[in-house]
Amino acid sequence: MSLEALFNPKSIAVIGASSKPGKIGYAIMKNLIEYGYEGKIYPVNIKGGEMEISGRKFKVYKSILEVPDEVDMAVIVVPAKFVPQVLEECGQKGVKVVPIISSGFGELGEEGKKVERQLVETARKYGMRILGPNIFGVVYTPAKLNATFGPTDVLPGPLALISQSGALGIALMGWTILEKIGLSAVVSVGNKADIDDADLLEFFRDDDNTKAILIYMEGVKDGRRFMEVAKEVSKKKPIIVIKAGRSERGAKAAASHTGSLAGSDTIYTAAFKQSGVLRALTIGEAFDWARALSNLPEPQGDNVVIITNGGGIGVMATDAAEEEGLHLYDDLEQLKIFANHMPPFGSYKNPVDLTGMADGKSYEGAIRDALAHPEMHAIAVLYCQTAVLDPRELAEIIIREYNESGRKKPLVVAIVGGIEAKEAIDMLNENGIPAYPEPERAIKALSALYKWSKWKKKHENQ
Amino acid sequence: MSLEALFNPKSIAVIGASSKPGKIGYAIMKNLIEYGYEGKIYPVNIKGGEMEISGRKFKVYKSILEVPDEVDMAVIVVPAKFVPQVLEECGQKGVKVVPIISSGFGELGEEGKKVERQLVETARKYGMRILGPNIFGVVYTPAKLNATFGPTDVLPGPLALISQSGALGIALMGWTILEKIGLSAVVSVGNKADIDDADLLEFFRDDDNTKAILIYMEGVKDGRRFMEVAKEVSKKKPIIVIKAGRSERGAKAAASHTGSLAGSDTIYTAAFKQSGVLRALTIGEAFDWARALSNLPEPQGDNVVIITNGGGIGVMATDAAEEEGLHLYDDLEQLKIFANHMPPFGSYKNPVDLTGMADGKSYEGAIRDALAHPEMHAIAVLYCQTAVLDPRELAEIIIREYNESGRKKPLVVAIVGGIEAKEAIDMLNENGIPAYPEPERAIKALSALYKWSKWKKKHENQ
Repeated sequence: MSLEALFNPKSIAVIGASSKPGKIGYAIMKNLIEYGYEGKIYPVNIKGGEMEISGRKFKVYKSILEVPDEVDMAVIVVPAKFVPQVLEECGQKGVKVVPIISSGFGELGEEGKKVERQLVETARKYGMRILGPNIFGVVYTPAKLNATFGPTDVLPGPLALISQSGALGIALMGWTILEKIGLSAVVSVGNKADIDDADLLEFFRDDDNTKAILIYMEGVKDGRRFMEVAKEVSKKKPIIVIKAGRSERGAKAAASHTGSLAGSDTIYTAAFKQSGVLRALTIGEAFDWARALSNLPEPQGDNVVIITNGGGIGVMATDAAEEEGLHLYDDLEQLKIFANHMPPFGSYKNPVDLTGMADGKSYEGAIRDALAHPEMHAIAVLYCQTAVLDPRELAEIIIREYNESGRKKPLVVAIVGGIEAKEAIDMLNENGIPAYPEPERAIKALSALYKWSKWKKKHENQ
Repeated sequence: MSLEALFNPKSIAVIGASSKPGKIGYAIMKNLIEYGYEGKIYPVNIKGGEMEISGRKFKVYKSILEVPDEVDMAVIVVPAKFVPQVLEECGQKGVKVVPIISSGFGELGEEGKKVERQLVETARKYGMRILGPNIFGVVYTPAKLNATFGPTDVLPGPLALISQSGALGIALMGWTILEKIGLSAVVSVGNKADIDDADLLEFFRDDDNTKAILIYMEGVKDGRRFMEVAKEVSKKKPIIVIKAGRSERGAKAAASHTGSLAGSDTIYTAAFKQSGVLRALTIGEAFDWARALSNLPEPQGDNVVIITNGGGIGVMATDAAEEEGLHLYDDLEQLKIFANHMPPFGSYKNPVDLTGMADGKSYEGAIRDALAHPEMHAIAVLYCQTAVLDPRELAEIIIREYNESGRKKPLVVAIVGGIEAKEAIDMLNENGIPAYPEPERAIKALSALYKWSKWKKKHENQ
């Protein structure tokens, strides 16, 4: 059954809704309203009456069965012991999908797992899908849907984020807001009693609002299915996975945390590789890559050009490019076009050094030429903050030139400096141009794009 | 000759001072005044007259020879062709140290190198020292001295920063302000005609305001001397070096940028290792380590304890610790003390998982116990932002507990989350407690401290 109702529900009931700040049933209501969900919202609480949240008044229904209209999604936040009964009523009501926020199920042991299986049976009986239990909810920015108790102001964009961990998932939502990473969706999968990573991957594969998928994973229940689906999805969109527990002791700690054996890490590594999944070793690396993979087109060839105003950061980027196996474009006859944009002591050898005297005009000309040149396939623009050019002005130049070129080749940016550099990086990221505070991070993100693109080209006709 | 006058000058002349914003001779004057330098400042400019900068009025001397008092330091910003004459006058005046900001010397080729050698001869004749030429200046925060044309508001602290690159050095000054990294000094060494890294290392070894030294290096002139001095200094204080040009192509780019062969990278690697110098691969890594190395005491043993509220980040930290070869403390009898600070489903096995329900009291108790326990030698506190505990409240708890314990063992912090997490990280760093947005970065910084400390213990009696 399709997950359409999970991301584009026409109406939502919140079972266990509350008007008391601090309660999860309040936070979900508040986020739904304040993030601008335009469908109908029906608070359900055994106490009935009325409630006012964020300036909107609602009639409170004692049971979902009392709601006078159709309900696509029912978010359940009541204590575990009431969930079976409430879910049964959702089935009777004809609800399509049920995110069960409530915890106290499979994560506690065998007894809870049994109850979880019964919930799934109830759902199957009525043709419903369950997300969770033990989750913080779901976000889908194209529908202005924020049915979580996490942060409100999720930035819309092309990356779908799936988290098995609730605590870390909420923290990562906050991270994306701070770091200007645009999201299409956030899905907390929790105990994965029904909907799992593979189901979500299939949805995001066909979702035009999603360009890349990032999964924080602690373990997989049906490894074979995950691999099969991931391989199919990777042929269309990149998947990045963070899975901790690489080391022996880390794996043990992971097993004790998730309550189930996490599986040998070697097997995961091999499976990810076969499926075209990019495994990031840290949260920072995952988001660094995700910026590039969710925003940039695939490169149409191997020739990378690095444009810089500082010898030092040019060398750092060159080190990283060589370590990543990227090919720096070498044709001096062609690279000579950059001589027009630098003083005589500059260097048009790749890395192209516009020198510390480089101003807005130098960068504008060099970037425009690189974007237009048919043999330059990917561009890394580096800038070491100087008094000659405000980094924010450079950001504006890059955004304008990249847009005017039609965004046909990958372009990454690194700006090293202080507060103005940080602002320029934020401006670029808000405009879908991956920008970083260090040259190596820009190069490694570009490399991740190359890795996925090469895997895809090799496998897409299989 | 001692470098005392470079860091603690009683009076400063700025030769080429200007009241025109945009001019380097203006920026130096402005930074000297606004950063609060309390000695005498004498602007020198061939035009004479008066100037007003940042609300202060100055008589302008036509030559340094006209200045009525003694001058310890003369900052030269006049064009290259006037520098020999001006330097000669500095010598006659009895100036002790001369930062030559002006460029147009050795970096242009053989002709410029010859002039540079003549400058050094002039200086030697009068017993003066030269910093540069081709530099952005010098900062020494204990003396409220900012004689640079870089950013003004350098944060005082225990790290000395030395940069061979001018552009990157200024950008890194901005970085330290943005990232709340406290500095004792910033020194731009430029062409190193006279004062070089080794001289500065010797000064910082004996400088009570400096606890660690970070060098951005493109090449070394006298490799043997650098190694000898670095080895002696490393026995007392940690040295971190960033030196780009590791890869073949990177080394070539570096050679063409600095105008001199940078030397085989393998030789640098071996030399750094022998001298106890920690080589960081990126700017970010260097500053990550510097936070720990400049702020924390050495560990008195190998037992590391990780305290977390999230299984996932605990596992990430464990992976990093194992990869870095750190020893996670294993004595369950002793670790049991943490059971007092967690719900029954928490885990006092290291990584100690206080669970997602951990509040301020849990953390306070666990941190206090870990700091007090004689067999727990280093502590990593991790926090995944939840609704239970505001990260800023946690930051306050950590600062208080660490101060009350007398800061006798190393403690690092990682907080994963959004804007509040970032604020908490800044609070901790401003209070000299190394804090990071990712668990691996905290662990790797702690590992850098262990690496240096072990090298030191092995070599200090040699």
